Amino acid sequence: MHAVNAAIEALLDAAQPVVDSEEVPLGALLGRVLNEDVTAPVDVPPADNSAMDGYALKHADWPGDGRKMALSQRIPAGTVPETLRPGTAARIFTGAEVPEGADTVVMQEHCEAGEGSVRILELAAQGANIRPRAQDVAAGKTILRKGDRLRPQDLGLLASVGISSASVHRRLRVAVLSNGSELVEPGGTVQEGQIYNSNRYLLDALMQAWGFEVIDLGIAPDDPAQIEELLLEAAVDADVIISSGGVSVGEEDHIKDVVAGLGAIDFWKIAIKPGKPFAFGHVNGTPFLGLPGNPASVLVTALVIARPFLLASQGVRETGLLTFAAPARFERKAVQRTEYLRARMTPDGIECEAAQSSGILLSAVEGNGLAVQPEGTAIAEGDLVEFLPYALLL
Amino acid sequence: MHAVNAAIEALLDAAQPVVDSEEVPLGALLGRVLNEDVTAPVDVPPADNSAMDGYALKHADWPGDGRKMALSQRIPAGTVPETLRPGTAARIFTGAEVPEGADTVVMQEHCEAGEGSVRILELAAQGANIRPRAQDVAAGKTILRKGDRLRPQDLGLLASVGISSASVHRRLRVAVLSNGSELVEPGGTVQEGQIYNSNRYLLDALMQAWGFEVIDLGIAPDDPAQIEELLLEAAVDADVIISSGGVSVGEEDHIKDVVAGLGAIDFWKIAIKPGKPFAFGHVNGTPFLGLPGNPASVLVTALVIARPFLLASQGVRETGLLTFAAPARFERKAVQRTEYLRARMTPDGIECEAAQSSGILLSAVEGNGLAVQPEGTAIAEGDLVEFLPYALLL
Repeated sequence: MHAVNAAIEALLDAAQPVVDSEEVPLGALLGRVLNEDVTAPVDVPPADNSAMDGYALKHADWPGDGRKMALSQRIPAGTVPETLRPGTAARIFTGAEVPEGADTVVMQEHCEAGEGSVRILELAAQGANIRPRAQDVAAGKTILRKGDRLRPQDLGLLASVGISSASVHRRLRVAVLSNGSELVEPGGTVQEGQIYNSNRYLLDALMQAWGFEVIDLGIAPDDPAQIEELLLEAAVDADVIISSGGVSVGEEDHIKDVVAGLGAIDFWKIAIKPGKPFAFGHVNGTPFLGLPGNPASVLVTALVIARPFLLASQGVRETGLLTFAAPARFERKAVQRTEYLRARMTPDGIECEAAQSSGILLSAVEGNGLAVQPEGTAIAEGDLVEFLPYALLL
Repeated sequence: MHAVNAAIEALLDAAQPVVDSEEVPLGALLGRVLNEDVTAPVDVPPADNSAMDGYALKHADWPGDGRKMALSQRIPAGTVPETLRPGTAARIFTGAEVPEGADTVVMQEHCEAGEGSVRILELAAQGANIRPRAQDVAAGKTILRKGDRLRPQDLGLLASVGISSASVHRRLRVAVLSNGSELVEPGGTVQEGQIYNSNRYLLDALMQAWGFEVIDLGIAPDDPAQIEELLLEAAVDADVIISSGGVSVGEEDHIKDVVAGLGAIDFWKIAIKPGKPFAFGHVNGTPFLGLPGNPASVLVTALVIARPFLLASQGVRETGLLTFAAPARFERKAVQRTEYLRARMTPDGIECEAAQSSGILLSAVEGNGLAVQPEGTAIAEGDLVEFLPYALLL
């Protein structure tokens, strides 16, 4: 039995990041993964600028309370200021460049404007209301790193240093296969003995959410020849193959023999619930992840076990999670495998969904995350329990 | 001065959800928002099925330890079983329908297979290893609700009840405008007095992350005629207009007069930092949100103030956030406005980024969320502080 963390680490050790890169324009970079560090080519801001609408002056030139200063220029944002004439002030606006010779901006609320002059009623401290050159970013600084998965603020920062495109890893291509002769596509009619295939849509959507390109292999019936054909085809184009179902060792579970014949496969028992049976191998060198067949097991093993491997294969540097703890509003006896309980975080703490069977997906839909009950531990009402919001796992 | 929550509530009260709907196939529903409740048309599973590879029998028919039972049929998944002959057992596989007349499945590890017969060494409890019909979902149950923003598990659940498309709100169309004569597009050259426009890419990416359609209006210089033209054009197609910059009351801030002339505008001072000036109004009936101009103010007001309004306008039912608390690894004096501190959650607690100026975006890039310091409160080392991971705000 592999501990959950050991299984995650073993997969991470085996992950090979996508090598190909592509240059992508700023507007299409959300969620993409940098494949090189990014260094700022310029200072931000490029010059001292005003943080306020007001008046720029040299602090030492202030003539004192109630005395007028001549206004020598007006500097709206986006214009080029002249050097400030000694003893004068300049009208200045938010974002406008502070003229050479000025060292202080006084907000307009502390001034009284006149005809060609201004009375500064309350002098600000020297340097006040000025955003100094390079306050945000200095040229040459590494602002983003290889392996960063780009967020909106990262795109804003790239734009702020004038960068309009970046080199990222090509999207990971993940082939998704659903195993089982009992499976029928939604929209069709279920005959006796059949069920609708939900894992395909669950897995396709997870791959989309993680930013991967999905190669959808559809349903493989429990027939070795058809499974082999689909896997061989997938191994040509895909970076990773992920399947659900068919990874038990029963005589109707053909994945094992087929993958073993085309490459290699290991069967792991992971101390996780729902989950446990998990296959890892390769098809002609393309990594193969075999998830269990029950929908809740697919969801949990995909989020907990497959996610770090897939993100690392995409080139993501940090695949760990922020973890949060909150008080349990439930109790459970000690468990032998680490349980990822379908749960609901509320202002009062974590409520555990009643239905935890691996065949039940509804409780994942009704909840907003997973509460973690480590192997060997019990949970009492009020205990602090680790909680993984679904939104953080995507 | 509006309290943050009061501002959010006032905007939510004004939000009108997009009325138009469209039928979207399952594979394209991720992140879309349902515009009607969804009821399960069938039971899941549709019949009792086996949770194990093993042998199905009637519990009362067990002949006792060490005695053989005849095998009367073999039931792979996806096939139609016959009614079980009394006194016999059926070979059965995971996911296969349990035959009429059987009420128990014994896992194969507890059996000894023979030629046409099986010895059940350890009988399971009556009903064991059977997933009863409708265990996950009963036909007629409301499984998802109007206003749900669809996640991978929601798509899996829709598929499991055979639904291949759903009616969702048309994507919200948000027009994004950046105000300021000092702004230049990244990729171009910055002249003296100019800076690169980062807000456009920050806001566009946020709108993408929230699933909206972006109408990118580019940069509006500080010129009322050009602002008016852009806003009038936007008001035709957009459901909401969002702008950055130009919402102060200075003489170079023209948004106010232009929007007032085309509709109405209110200026709010919100007790938030970074942020504070915020405009809300409409252009010919199209809601208008005016954010401040500094990048960190744009990020925080977009995430905290605009997000709930925009999601509600998209039709999302629950716009509130999961909140988490963790110990502060910093201290701060009491503040007059609620501060959303750019911060980093670590295993040891929350570290506060050193740079909190509203002009600085780098500290949002280096951190992983916002720590909340409510107005009027100080923070001491070790205090539990509310933390909003960026990933939860998207």
